[in-house]
Amino acid sequence: MIVCVAASPSVDKLFEVDRLTPGAIHRPSSFVQVPGGKGLNVARAAASLGAQVRATGILGGFAGGWIEDALATEGIAGHFAWARVESRASLSVADRETSGLTEFYEHGWEIEPKVWRQLETVVAGLLTEAAWLTISGSMPLGAPSDGYANLVREAHAAGVPVALDATGGALATGLDAGPDLVKVNAEEASGLLGVSVVTREEALRAAVELRRRAGVRGRAGLVTRGAEGVVVAGPDGSALEGKLHVRGPYPVDSGDAFLAGLVVGLARGDAWPRALALALGAATANAEVPGAGRLDPSRATALADGAEVRAL
Amino acid sequence: MIVCVAASPSVDKLFEVDRLTPGAIHRPSSFVQVPGGKGLNVARAAASLGAQVRATGILGGFAGGWIEDALATEGIAGHFAWARVESRASLSVADRETSGLTEFYEHGWEIEPKVWRQLETVVAGLLTEAAWLTISGSMPLGAPSDGYANLVREAHAAGVPVALDATGGALATGLDAGPDLVKVNAEEASGLLGVSVVTREEALRAAVELRRRAGVRGRAGLVTRGAEGVVVAGPDGSALEGKLHVRGPYPVDSGDAFLAGLVVGLARGDAWPRALALALGAATANAEVPGAGRLDPSRATALADGAEVRAL
Repeated sequence: MIVCVAASPSVDKLFEVDRLTPGAIHRPSSFVQVPGGKGLNVARAAASLGAQVRATGILGGFAGGWIEDALATEGIAGHFAWARVESRASLSVADRETSGLTEFYEHGWEIEPKVWRQLETVVAGLLTEAAWLTISGSMPLGAPSDGYANLVREAHAAGVPVALDATGGALATGLDAGPDLVKVNAEEASGLLGVSVVTREEALRAAVELRRRAGVRGRAGLVTRGAEGVVVAGPDGSALEGKLHVRGPYPVDSGDAFLAGLVVGLARGDAWPRALALALGAATANAEVPGAGRLDPSRATALADGAEVRAL
Repeated sequence: MIVCVAASPSVDKLFEVDRLTPGAIHRPSSFVQVPGGKGLNVARAAASLGAQVRATGILGGFAGGWIEDALATEGIAGHFAWARVESRASLSVADRETSGLTEFYEHGWEIEPKVWRQLETVVAGLLTEAAWLTISGSMPLGAPSDGYANLVREAHAAGVPVALDATGGALATGLDAGPDLVKVNAEEASGLLGVSVVTREEALRAAVELRRRAGVRGRAGLVTRGAEGVVVAGPDGSALEGKLHVRGPYPVDSGDAFLAGLVVGLARGDAWPRALALALGAATANAEVPGAGRLDPSRATALADGAEVRAL
């Protein structure tokens, strides 16, 4: 079972308009609302790839109730800690004329410190059956700065490997606790390490440094580079590059499907090159259809077969 | 007691940004979320003016639960019919640089026909204690086209006068049932009657026609004209004009505070000129502070004393 932490899920609303005009009143030509947040995208993609998953994190209020209910309707089991404040919402406005996406992200309200401790208790309960723990996205306001580090240590105490995909301070402190793999995009790597991460060589140096910070031995550092693929400093010290020469029209959030594919592969015992190919296939299959974390699993497998993975 | 119908309330979110940029990701510099919809604005303003109010309408799902809960926190008692679909939300994005407001209104989901009948039952229960019934705003998708007409007839059967503020088909069919007063703005009057409603003379002709459609005797037709004030075809056949030479920076939705002031005045036995002055004072007091339906009641009374009401 793969346990996916979404510390701060949101109600994601996609509102399509013919044309976004500042100052005007807009009514949608189409509208959908889904449970969102990177951790839930990972859970959804991993479930589509056939894995048993449990989603966890912190929900609150009526909006949190909607998220839990809608996830259950999708067939994704969730075990959440509950805050007294409402879960946040995000509105994405898609402009049909320009194909542009304009986004409005609520910060969410501040949680009480004890709610994070409740999350740690919920996660501890799930770890007894977990093959992997994934931690993705931001922490809610009010969470302790070392919140992700606590979850990493908790998983290791239970003998469960951890994958971390975060930014900023949550990434920095989470890394210090030694996750088994850390995956960030080039921009996030650059932000953390304070160096340029543009070329393949720079990305590989960043991946090696991420691995070093996570503890070297048995750790993996991954830097995704959009259309340029991904570079990996692998757990045995080898360097890999993965590419897939197919593009989909919906690449936003496909990094979450990538992480899902990687962990599903590793959890079932795939060697790293094969798990990396599944990650690339899942990311691209996700980019071919609308909807965060959604993908056609047979398409993901077919795409994985066409992925190019080589030693650097 | 004043019973305020908000057939299709919404979760109203106000998201302030430094600058709205199409294609960009925005995080708010300030964010508030309130129960919204014209009928709830009327209830809030009438309660602020000291009236006993009951809000009613159709709520649904988790979003509806939030609306009910937040209204109760404001001290406004609500008795609602419940749909199986979620209540809608509206996002207003305020641009600090341009002072522009860009709005995104969800349509809401379609209700089952039986939910409207449930609303009629809820309203019937409230009418036994009501001094006035107000009906404001749009009906949800799935409501019967003569839904407002049914509520008007139900109120009259209980001996309760009705104020109607609606647009389009809901206004047209509601008018046929003979509400005691109908209040629309110049644009809505023009849309219903198919004539120009720009000058004071045109507005008065429209008010007279609204009164005629509502049944003439004992009926009042009101056309609001923004900064130009309001013209009234009164229940005794007289014509009035009301003006207030003060402007507030938040005029959006002040028509709802206007209706609240008018009905609060009439319910306590004020003559029409005095009730009209309170309506103008409430609308302007509402325009002086942010927040739909919010107002300082002593400011509303002071402004009412300065209102200019005269026979035409």
